[in-house]
Amino acid sequence: MDITDLAQRIVSGERRALARGITLVESARDDHRTQATALLAALPRDRQALRIGLSGTPGVGKSTFIESFGMMLVGLGLRVAVLAVDPSSARSGGSILGDKTRMERLSREPAAFIRPSPSQTYLGGVARHTREAVALCEAAGFDVVLIETVGVGQSETVVAQMSDIFVLLLAPAGGDELQGVKRGIMEMADVILINKADGDLKPAATRTCADYSGALRLLRKRPQDPDGFPKAMMVSALTDEGLVTAWDDMQILNTWRQENGYFEANRAAQARYWFEEDVRAGILAQLDSGSARNTMIALGNAVAEGRLNPAEAATEMLSFLSGSNRRL
Amino acid sequence: MDITDLAQRIVSGERRALARGITLVESARDDHRTQATALLAALPRDRQALRIGLSGTPGVGKSTFIESFGMMLVGLGLRVAVLAVDPSSARSGGSILGDKTRMERLSREPAAFIRPSPSQTYLGGVARHTREAVALCEAAGFDVVLIETVGVGQSETVVAQMSDIFVLLLAPAGGDELQGVKRGIMEMADVILINKADGDLKPAATRTCADYSGALRLLRKRPQDPDGFPKAMMVSALTDEGLVTAWDDMQILNTWRQENGYFEANRAAQARYWFEEDVRAGILAQLDSGSARNTMIALGNAVAEGRLNPAEAATEMLSFLSGSNRRL
Repeated sequence: MDITDLAQRIVSGERRALARGITLVESARDDHRTQATALLAALPRDRQALRIGLSGTPGVGKSTFIESFGMMLVGLGLRVAVLAVDPSSARSGGSILGDKTRMERLSREPAAFIRPSPSQTYLGGVARHTREAVALCEAAGFDVVLIETVGVGQSETVVAQMSDIFVLLLAPAGGDELQGVKRGIMEMADVILINKADGDLKPAATRTCADYSGALRLLRKRPQDPDGFPKAMMVSALTDEGLVTAWDDMQILNTWRQENGYFEANRAAQARYWFEEDVRAGILAQLDSGSARNTMIALGNAVAEGRLNPAEAATEMLSFLSGSNRRL
Repeated sequence: MDITDLAQRIVSGERRALARGITLVESARDDHRTQATALLAALPRDRQALRIGLSGTPGVGKSTFIESFGMMLVGLGLRVAVLAVDPSSARSGGSILGDKTRMERLSREPAAFIRPSPSQTYLGGVARHTREAVALCEAAGFDVVLIETVGVGQSETVVAQMSDIFVLLLAPAGGDELQGVKRGIMEMADVILINKADGDLKPAATRTCADYSGALRLLRKRPQDPDGFPKAMMVSALTDEGLVTAWDDMQILNTWRQENGYFEANRAAQARYWFEEDVRAGILAQLDSGSARNTMIALGNAVAEGRLNPAEAATEMLSFLSGSNRRL
């Protein structure tokens, strides 16, 4: 594969080249990984999309929101890419069709690109591949990259670590409970959108929005926020109400962060984070190959049989690994 | 420090030697770690306590239960050690007093030994130190080692990985909800105890117990369980009702597993797990020292400044680490 050529075709906006590049960064094969790293290095760094992370539990209307929000952005003349981080490994090839079906209008738009979550056995793998897919979409000239995830477990942290703006999508709640949103998730949110603020649910949405506005005011002020942020507001993906306002607010937030250095600082910190994650993952993967793997198994057997205790065996393994290597 | 002497004094049942040994395994200092590993290796392997993991959220009466259950065991002529895994790092020296105060009768028993959670900044550290403290208590001749944890996040998995029997302590619930106990936690439980089955709460406890009995029957049968296990039952730490029955059932379960090879198989698998965890922790710790640390920082800076992408820098770091080392 000619990597320079592929990079050029991605930059020129060829959708098939972009899809092929993403398939490459998603591959677990060693030779593909080498090519993927070369592809990423060959991309220009002067293009920048706004990366918006979007989290919401099933039932809040996430697909409908992305469809409506995406169509609104396309209507404004923007190019929109949608990527997904799905922590469950159960997704199969069928989910591609699923993703496009649930965003039927958006998937037909020439200015939109929808890519489902890579199927992987562990979240760390999904994370790296999605992050690299974001870089490809950015190089392909998309103005906005939406990275969606279902709101469970660690996947929200993963998405927040690759987003410029993190949006939490919620449904109107009955009563005054805060829907069990964990404090840690609240603290990551830049914008909280209460969806389904239409028809019968409007009063509940208004209450929920007020509850979250109150809750956000109780959180510690973060340096990366201008006055009024993080904020909660109402939207309706059904009637499109509030979508333009939400986008305007995201732009206000983004512009302020750009002008005050927080945008660049955040991207730099994220890049460092992912570098460290990649090193950790790489070093642990090496335990699982070659003579290291055999030694792990042999020492593991000795431990299981009670001939060594775990700490002794670990010490032995670490000294085996450092063997002739003065660096580790 | 004379490690052989310390090992002998622990085996002979000297409480101060045991406390000192535990302090040693809890230390993060490199020289202490070497001594701790030597101490663990010097211990005889012929003594075996029954290791009971106990999890329960705040409010279920965990301390009262441990006090009553422990006193009952002591009354049966058994020696009981109580250790804790606290995932919060906020615990300070004051918690020693706290732990002993909340188990006032048990802490005065010569046949009982209570040790609070080591204060550590990360759960992995607490896990290793507690697991090694369990081994010391076992060598010191305790018959039962209770390892308690508050039921949040990963700490339950950690405790289950060092227990022969995992007990989930619950309070009576209102209505028919299952108190939001996660399926994963349910699947780890060997015995579910509904505490506070006394006075006004007795009817609610009866319902909750029936609910959990039903839920347990829906779980997939595990090979390590005889008929009737895992099971839910009622206890009262206040009136002592059900405590003897609960202990009898734990012994039935333990005896069956001993006779059918599951006890040994479980301990072997756990030892292998902890060996692998120790290797992973050790190898990642090395990234943080010496020339590896400096290279991590330099490459991290290059990534933060956009001169390298995370994948490129990670590849460079991994090849730096493997440098002259043919083994990794």
